[in-house]
Amino acid sequence: MSKKLVAEVIGTFILVFLGSSAIVFMADAIGLIGISFAFGLGVVAAAYGLGAISGAHLNPAVSIGMVTAGRMSVGDFIGYVIAQVIGAILAIIVLWVIAAGNPEWSIATNGLGQTTVGAYGTTGALVFEAVATFLFVTVILGATHSSAPGAMAGLAIGLTLVLIHLAGIQVSGSSVNPARSLAPALFVGGDALAQLWLYIVAPLAGGAAAGALHAAGFTRADA
Amino acid sequence: MSKKLVAEVIGTFILVFLGSSAIVFMADAIGLIGISFAFGLGVVAAAYGLGAISGAHLNPAVSIGMVTAGRMSVGDFIGYVIAQVIGAILAIIVLWVIAAGNPEWSIATNGLGQTTVGAYGTTGALVFEAVATFLFVTVILGATHSSAPGAMAGLAIGLTLVLIHLAGIQVSGSSVNPARSLAPALFVGGDALAQLWLYIVAPLAGGAAAGALHAAGFTRADA
Amino acid sequence: MSKKLVAEVIGTFILVFLGSSAIVFMADAIGLIGISFAFGLGVVAAAYGLGAISGAHLNPAVSIGMVTAGRMSVGDFIGYVIAQVIGAILAIIVLWVIAAGNPEWSIATNGLGQTTVGAYGTTGALVFEAVATFLFVTVILGATHSSAPGAMAGLAIGLTLVLIHLAGIQVSGSSVNPARSLAPALFVGGDALAQLWLYIVAPLAGGAAAGALHAAGFTRADA
Amino acid sequence: MSKKLVAEVIGTFILVFLGSSAIVFMADAIGLIGISFAFGLGVVAAAYGLGAISGAHLNPAVSIGMVTAGRMSVGDFIGYVIAQVIGAILAIIVLWVIAAGNPEWSIATNGLGQTTVGAYGTTGALVFEAVATFLFVTVILGATHSSAPGAMAGLAIGLTLVLIHLAGIQVSGSSVNPARSLAPALFVGGDALAQLWLYIVAPLAGGAAAGALHAAGFTRADA
Repeated sequence: MSKKLVAEVIGTFILVFLGSSAIVFMADAIGLIGISFAFGLGVVAAAYGLGAISGAHLNPAVSIGMVTAGRMSVGDFIGYVIAQVIGAILAIIVLWVIAAGNPEWSIATNGLGQTTVGAYGTTGALVFEAVATFLFVTVILGATHSSAPGAMAGLAIGLTLVLIHLAGIQVSGSSVNPARSLAPALFVGGDALAQLWLYIVAPLAGGAAAGALHAAGFTRADA
Repeated sequence: MSKKLVAEVIGTFILVFLGSSAIVFMADAIGLIGISFAFGLGVVAAAYGLGAISGAHLNPAVSIGMVTAGRMSVGDFIGYVIAQVIGAILAIIVLWVIAAGNPEWSIATNGLGQTTVGAYGTTGALVFEAVATFLFVTVILGATHSSAPGAMAGLAIGLTLVLIHLAGIQVSGSSVNPARSLAPALFVGGDALAQLWLYIVAPLAGGAAAGALHAAGFTRADA
Repeated sequence: MSKKLVAEVIGTFILVFLGSSAIVFMADAIGLIGISFAFGLGVVAAAYGLGAISGAHLNPAVSIGMVTAGRMSVGDFIGYVIAQVIGAILAIIVLWVIAAGNPEWSIATNGLGQTTVGAYGTTGALVFEAVATFLFVTVILGATHSSAPGAMAGLAIGLTLVLIHLAGIQVSGSSVNPARSLAPALFVGGDALAQLWLYIVAPLAGGAAAGALHAAGFTRADA
Repeated sequence: MSKKLVAEVIGTFILVFLGSSAIVFMADAIGLIGISFAFGLGVVAAAYGLGAISGAHLNPAVSIGMVTAGRMSVGDFIGYVIAQVIGAILAIIVLWVIAAGNPEWSIATNGLGQTTVGAYGTTGALVFEAVATFLFVTVILGATHSSAPGAMAGLAIGLTLVLIHLAGIQVSGSSVNPARSLAPALFVGGDALAQLWLYIVAPLAGGAAAGALHAAGFTRADA
């Protein structure tokens, strides 16, 4: 496995392990604001810690946007997605090992930080995931473009993910990331698994659209 | 429509869609701190994602300050304001589509994130909007001036908007942005529409004054 | 009045008006976390908006540290302190104008964001103010030194003030700034005025000590 | 004592004094989110204020990672650890002086910000401390590597520590720092002292592993 893929495994592990820990171990104390910051700061950590190696995509929806924007090959995309899924699954396994130490915790009651459709229904969640991922990947493509201050990209992107969580956790869990939703769904089953298609289709569609619009020049400073 | 105007449409959409989502979908869980961060981080997202294209004004009060500061023509101002209003209206429409998925939600009870006068009355709201916008645009003009570190401007400006929300949501909703107040008011009507004049007049006056003071050299490092 | 002093007036106005607004208008909704961020982000706003003009001290304890560090003359110090006090007083006056619009608000019950000794007594408040200001000014002198990345200074310093508030509001109000404490005390009187000596003496002592240690080379990278 | 060691004493004092103050004086008002930001912003303050002198490790687990990464000698490591422990102990002493001013406060009931095993048991705390420190030091080594934007390192590292606290305070107190756990344990005794081995062993193991992996090239952009 190349070093880039190792970096994607570790980076996605950081995002999913620490973000999901905030849900499973801390939600009663830090609420949805705390969870919002946790996921966004996971991107900041991975971006500055590992971004120089792999770009720290951490997310198949980001990688597909890089493909449609013309910045990544389909072959590299497949490797990145596999690495992201491995990182996310490892994160949920370590989370589970820790959670199991609490006799009060059970996977059925407390879960593993999975995402499910909220009070605004399937259509609401689908629209939110697609639109939010479109905006997220548009920001990523702009912030990592040569026209923007590169040193700030990781921070700006992480804070955008904080914002997306502040906006929509109660709509869809604010996944915008198929790997982040897939990993806990595999272990938890139930609604998280039954609704997993939504968390794969909507973010990928939103990310791919953002990349295409960027490639077409609408959101690119030099086009 | 030029690429700059597309960027203003998308950027204002980011600010208004994600900020207003925080109000409509998340207020019960994240409170006014969460809403404060949501609006400020919307500026951060748009500034780094699209700022290289249009400057990411996202706000007629910012654009008018650029005019009185001598950095923008009146013709460009008109185009920017139209783009900002279109972006904000599109944001509210998408927000409404999602909100309608919840049978418990109604526009009359839950609204669309509109701004209205709070417990400190019309004078209180008017003074706060004018003063806060004056300070906001003064910070924007300084932070984007050649004497300041340009890479930090988007972050500093976004955090200033977080601060303005932390200071005055209960006074006026901390709009400081006519486009952000106009869009939900058009759909919600009632007080939001009746008081809309305040959210147009006060921010524009504050922003124009900040630009004039900057042009006169009082708040400009090189004057 | 020179442009530097205008910048100190406006910068201190930003810090005191928006920070104190968070206390007076928003404390019930945003709590002490929200207030902590408000004061710290006031420094961020002023630093990037006006720092290129005056350095954005906003605080006599910072200015005295600059004097003992050998970076500022006593004559300039006096001008800066006068400007900071004027900015803080203007901020409290505008705050009062807004607050008076709420018939439920009264200066006796709700105050104007003044600082007073908390549950840890006068000694606790005195020690906290002196130590926290010493640390604050040490960070300021280091972060604005040529050995540190200058673009980050305003953000790092603002976040340090967030931290100082998170650590000690219930001890002393976390003033670390004689101008910020003086202005509301003049209008509110009572304990705030009776204890004002503490908020002048302790921060000035802490700031002066930090500057002297810096001048002596203990906290200076190039000494 | 060299200037580098003075900087480590003061830097660790900033982290431990202000972070532990947030626990002891403010926990009832700011909750675990506030405490999370306090510890992370302590790193930001020390990194920009003193990082140019000593690198602002503030933590034996960071320093051991620098040793195994080949960036620090064992001799320097010993000096740094002694300085970090001195800084942390001084911080707890000053904290105690302030706390003692409140007749309601007692060391037995309120403590001094010590870390103890939470609801997920000793294994849960051990795994969390080891894994979180491994991730923390991996981020530090990457963010301070020549391939990353150096100006952002202190902010990215501090925000990573915020994240680690948001993820695991209820598991282990999110120490990831033997000096931060040692100092209050010495004064408080009880569980904090009995479990101190865990807060020494797990972070040092995690930090050393991160350094070794970095040295081996897995997480290094130029290897």
